[in-house]
Amino acid sequence: MSTDYGIIAAGVAAVALLYSLVLFISVRRQDPGNAKMMEIASAVRVGANAFLRREYTVIAPVAVAISILIFVFIDIPLKTGGATAVGFLVGAVLSAIAGYIGMAATVRTSSRTAQAARKGLGPALTLAFRGGGVMGMAVVGFGLLGVSLFYIAYQSVIITTPAVIAGLGFGASLIALFMRVSGGIYTKAADVGADLVGKAEAGIPEDDERNPAVIADNVGDNVGDCAGMGADIYESFVVTSIAALILAALITAKASTFGSLTSLISSNQLLVYPLLLGAAGIIGSILGGLYIRKSIKKDPMGSLNIALIISAVIAIAIDAAISFSIFSDSELGWGLLASAIVGVIVVIAIERVADYFTSYRFRPVKFIAEASQTGPATNFLAGFSTGLQSTAPSAVVLVLAIAFSYFIGYYASGDNVLFGIYSTAIATMAELSLTGVIMSIDSFGPITDNANGIVEMAGLESGVREVTDELDAVGNTTKATTKAFAVTSAALAAVAIFFAFQSEVNNQIAGNASLMAKYGLLNGQTLEFALSDPRVIIGLFIGGLLPFFFCSFLIQAVGRAAIEMVNEVRRQFREIPGIMDRTGKPDYAKCVDISTTAALRELGKPAALAVLTPLLVGFILGPVALGGLLIGSVVTGVYLAFMMTNGGAAWDNAKKYIELGNLGGKNTPIHAAAVMGDTVGDPFKDTAGPAINSLIKVLNTISIVFISAMVLYALFV
Amino acid sequence: MSTDYGIIAAGVAAVALLYSLVLFISVRRQDPGNAKMMEIASAVRVGANAFLRREYTVIAPVAVAISILIFVFIDIPLKTGGATAVGFLVGAVLSAIAGYIGMAATVRTSSRTAQAARKGLGPALTLAFRGGGVMGMAVVGFGLLGVSLFYIAYQSVIITTPAVIAGLGFGASLIALFMRVSGGIYTKAADVGADLVGKAEAGIPEDDERNPAVIADNVGDNVGDCAGMGADIYESFVVTSIAALILAALITAKASTFGSLTSLISSNQLLVYPLLLGAAGIIGSILGGLYIRKSIKKDPMGSLNIALIISAVIAIAIDAAISFSIFSDSELGWGLLASAIVGVIVVIAIERVADYFTSYRFRPVKFIAEASQTGPATNFLAGFSTGLQSTAPSAVVLVLAIAFSYFIGYYASGDNVLFGIYSTAIATMAELSLTGVIMSIDSFGPITDNANGIVEMAGLESGVREVTDELDAVGNTTKATTKAFAVTSAALAAVAIFFAFQSEVNNQIAGNASLMAKYGLLNGQTLEFALSDPRVIIGLFIGGLLPFFFCSFLIQAVGRAAIEMVNEVRRQFREIPGIMDRTGKPDYAKCVDISTTAALRELGKPAALAVLTPLLVGFILGPVALGGLLIGSVVTGVYLAFMMTNGGAAWDNAKKYIELGNLGGKNTPIHAAAVMGDTVGDPFKDTAGPAINSLIKVLNTISIVFISAMVLYALFV
Repeated sequence: MSTDYGIIAAGVAAVALLYSLVLFISVRRQDPGNAKMMEIASAVRVGANAFLRREYTVIAPVAVAISILIFVFIDIPLKTGGATAVGFLVGAVLSAIAGYIGMAATVRTSSRTAQAARKGLGPALTLAFRGGGVMGMAVVGFGLLGVSLFYIAYQSVIITTPAVIAGLGFGASLIALFMRVSGGIYTKAADVGADLVGKAEAGIPEDDERNPAVIADNVGDNVGDCAGMGADIYESFVVTSIAALILAALITAKASTFGSLTSLISSNQLLVYPLLLGAAGIIGSILGGLYIRKSIKKDPMGSLNIALIISAVIAIAIDAAISFSIFSDSELGWGLLASAIVGVIVVIAIERVADYFTSYRFRPVKFIAEASQTGPATNFLAGFSTGLQSTAPSAVVLVLAIAFSYFIGYYASGDNVLFGIYSTAIATMAELSLTGVIMSIDSFGPITDNANGIVEMAGLESGVREVTDELDAVGNTTKATTKAFAVTSAALAAVAIFFAFQSEVNNQIAGNASLMAKYGLLNGQTLEFALSDPRVIIGLFIGGLLPFFFCSFLIQAVGRAAIEMVNEVRRQFREIPGIMDRTGKPDYAKCVDISTTAALRELGKPAALAVLTPLLVGFILGPVALGGLLIGSVVTGVYLAFMMTNGGAAWDNAKKYIELGNLGGKNTPIHAAAVMGDTVGDPFKDTAGPAINSLIKVLNTISIVFISAMVLYALFV
Repeated sequence: MSTDYGIIAAGVAAVALLYSLVLFISVRRQDPGNAKMMEIASAVRVGANAFLRREYTVIAPVAVAISILIFVFIDIPLKTGGATAVGFLVGAVLSAIAGYIGMAATVRTSSRTAQAARKGLGPALTLAFRGGGVMGMAVVGFGLLGVSLFYIAYQSVIITTPAVIAGLGFGASLIALFMRVSGGIYTKAADVGADLVGKAEAGIPEDDERNPAVIADNVGDNVGDCAGMGADIYESFVVTSIAALILAALITAKASTFGSLTSLISSNQLLVYPLLLGAAGIIGSILGGLYIRKSIKKDPMGSLNIALIISAVIAIAIDAAISFSIFSDSELGWGLLASAIVGVIVVIAIERVADYFTSYRFRPVKFIAEASQTGPATNFLAGFSTGLQSTAPSAVVLVLAIAFSYFIGYYASGDNVLFGIYSTAIATMAELSLTGVIMSIDSFGPITDNANGIVEMAGLESGVREVTDELDAVGNTTKATTKAFAVTSAALAAVAIFFAFQSEVNNQIAGNASLMAKYGLLNGQTLEFALSDPRVIIGLFIGGLLPFFFCSFLIQAVGRAAIEMVNEVRRQFREIPGIMDRTGKPDYAKCVDISTTAALRELGKPAALAVLTPLLVGFILGPVALGGLLIGSVVTGVYLAFMMTNGGAAWDNAKKYIELGNLGGKNTPIHAAAVMGDTVGDPFKDTAGPAINSLIKVLNTISIVFISAMVLYALFV
């Protein structure tokens, strides 16, 4: 029976991929616009492809080397038949493919959206949303497909050695880390560089074709906001799935000890349940997305919200059906359904919080705009403190989600701690099951941003610009709210996988008498990760440090690359005659090359930090300190990430608010101060902040993959 | 015997106070300069006194109310004879007195230092150092006196109910929190406001008497850098002492179970040892300080460092004598001495790290200065990332200090965990024993800053300005390194007191059968603060949030107050005729009033957050969640604090580096960008960053004071 459910989940995943293909074809059929528009779109596409190709070339040998290490040090000793290494490669390759397909769609959609905007808001909105849907459906489709197939192939191994499935998550995490870091550096080096000279010095508008960095900037939107976000959410989806599966496997292995619950969990019900939730979210996402139609005339943001809510309601309805059918209307079934609903509510709640702090309809962004009246310094302070302030309600959502989902599962299972934790993983899974529609809404952002740029550069009629401007502003909001979604899901996924990590450590030690002795455990005792143990405290401090140190590399990298870009743009303005009066053509390729080179050059240190620290701590200080490290990194990382993503988006929209004519409007010292704030916020919200998600998850997945080796290593020292 | 040692410690504390008085008299005897200088100094003194009076008026009723609560809910149930409430009031009152005396000295020293600067570097350096010494000796003298007298009076109560002594720490923490928050807001509202209009708009130099905010700025240096830092370090000293005493009392109560160690610890040796270390540090500080003489002709920074190193060496020598005499040359004595040495090394190491990141002799500050060439945005990113980067080596020092001191104590006591933790407290105590000389060096900063201002405003001859400029630059460095010292000591103190908190929780539960049952503990079991408990995770997330949220209030408060100040200064320039050509006199008092009012108005929310959150979490979610909260707040707080204090100082010195003539020097767009960075860094380094120290410690002390009530509360719900 459980295999059948696995096949159903894989089947729905295949439907998602098919739907992604359908959307892709329907997008490609649209009118790509005039020659000028096609030329610009083509330049962006070439730049984006070149970047992705170079990026994958860098990643491939690293991934192969790691998979060999995993095979030798994990699969052979654990006798898993290579499952971990295979999972790692599958996780990585599917992530790369999803990113490639998604980006192939977004770069093709932007010029078509610009063209559609000539026909009105509805057609442009629909097209941009469908283009984003290619990415959304590819991400969730490949995510669920990988996990389901892995489950079908290795079910029995998962029950005995749950950690094997972590390889899949580690593969996804590694690609996400690389994409987030280098994509983030790429996009902001170009954006900051373009803004600093273009807007602040030369006084030309954003996306002006006279700016030599304009193509690099547009490429950056795709590789950062689109491919980077796709890899990030794909990773969250996979990591959460495997956390749920590991916890499920740990419970299922002891199913016979659960009394009245035994029959409800002994046929792998707990393992297939998260997979089916994922499938329910896909169906909800497809149906909800249909709400976005060409006939929509106004309020694009409201329409996207309605599509999201429809998706959520459908997903919950299907979740209910699944819960009752699998757990036959028991208290456990009701409890897990309640947790799934908590997860869906988190999506809505966290997006409301992010919207409040980042939209110019509310007080915080207006406060930043007003602070620009006394110059860039007060603007910086206002934006920074707004980012800090946004951490509080975000934390409330996060803490309530953990508390509710835990206690629901705990009480529904008759006071079982592991069920409580599994229930938290289920809430996270339900949250991420809406990835399809969320990613469609998010990828909508870079598409409309690029479309807006193409309208500007191709000099289309002013009515068109109004349409794409409105869509672009909506895109800014959706990008901000999706980031909050990504941070929350990363934190919840990390908490879930941390519990899986703890259980797995004890799972590894339990059977082995010499290991028990080595760790000073008596029969029946388990290794505790207690705050009274200084190794845990030391681990917490090391883990807490990582997000801060990691971000310092990224922000410094963007700063350095942006300065290179500024100097190049200044040089072109100086040396290439006639750029400003449009008789000379800037050298776009040179700027694209600066971004690409910088992105790959600056990747090494932060990636090494993320991969090597947990290994060193685990092997040298042991699994207890490593547990502290994992939690420490989430505790500081989640707040830094909220602060940076919300603060950055708030700065951006404070500038937009002024550009709409408030407080004197464009080309005033107030506007110049707001542009400075936006420039600072750029690497916060698009480089460092989102990359923390991947950092947190890579730490967790690498730890769980290597935990068996770390635990055994204690025998040799 | 142990009472004798307590009396010795109290005696040395009295010597420190006497020495403080001697320094004060010797400073007052110096020539206060001409009428103009005295007029300026008097205005600063009046403003500072008025602020302190209003501040204390706000605090007094709060402190009285809290002491009544403590008496009713803690002392009466625990039958302590009011020890906790008395301790609370003593801790608070001594802090207030120390702050008052110290500030009375610094405001009187600045004009005299300006006058002494006419005679050369040596006399000015010596005078400023002695003026700072009044504060330094008062802080450490009152700190040690309070703890020693409390120990002498309540020894037997401390052994049975160690938590009573926490009242002393809570009193110190509450004053420090109030002083840090309001002093920090005061000083930066004035400074930022003065700089934004004065330097950036009107183009007049810093400390120019035409700037209406200049007196408020000078008052701010005293109330923030001097009184605020004094309260902060006093608090760290007291809190560390009580953490050591509580841990010592917990061990001593079980002395008979320690076999060969029993005789070494049964006569309260562990309790008096930290007090005597404090005394050793005082003697070292007094003797080391004598190195600063009028005959010094150059390298003031080097001279201050030598004074510090002499103090450290003398302190260690006395520590050795104490260890061997108290613990009769045993392994334990050697171990604790080694931990004390670790603590002293931490002082030197953390100051080296801070110096590297904040001095323009090194790469990071130059990097920020260079980033100013592309404007305020890249300057801001460079400074921010430098602050982030500085967290890594600071964390290494912190983690190594915890690890070494713990394992030394652990192994020296024959593998006892409590001894390991006590040993960590000893390292922290040794670090803080150097408070006398450190605070002298720190208070030196605001004195020379003010002296520099007086030289500028009084229009003294240019050779004098050169001397005070050099001393001011040194003051900037010492302010930065002292902040790193304060952050590290706060973190170490928090870790020590957190362990005391855990032990105290179990101490409260242990004897009580119905409590044991309520907390689900079997006989012999203790309550564990384990990461596998979701309440701990929830506590960690709530605790981790606090520093972020707390800082948002402070930075927003500074931003708001600075904007008020900017508008007032702009108004005065506009409405008062003749300010710029010196025929009209600005209304200094109005600006002083804006700072004072803002500082007190903005105090409420952050103070309530710090005081109420641990109480709510402790009573509602229980002691286990509260334990998570305490550690969570340290883990995020320490890195935010390092980031802000180091980053802020780096921005400041990047500006100074340019002002020295590098990269084009003053009055260039590059300099303007650097001024913006400095302005942003101001509230980072002088308001939010340092206030985190007090936040962390107030959370810990309030928790330990109220833990008995929280533990018992579980019986009623």
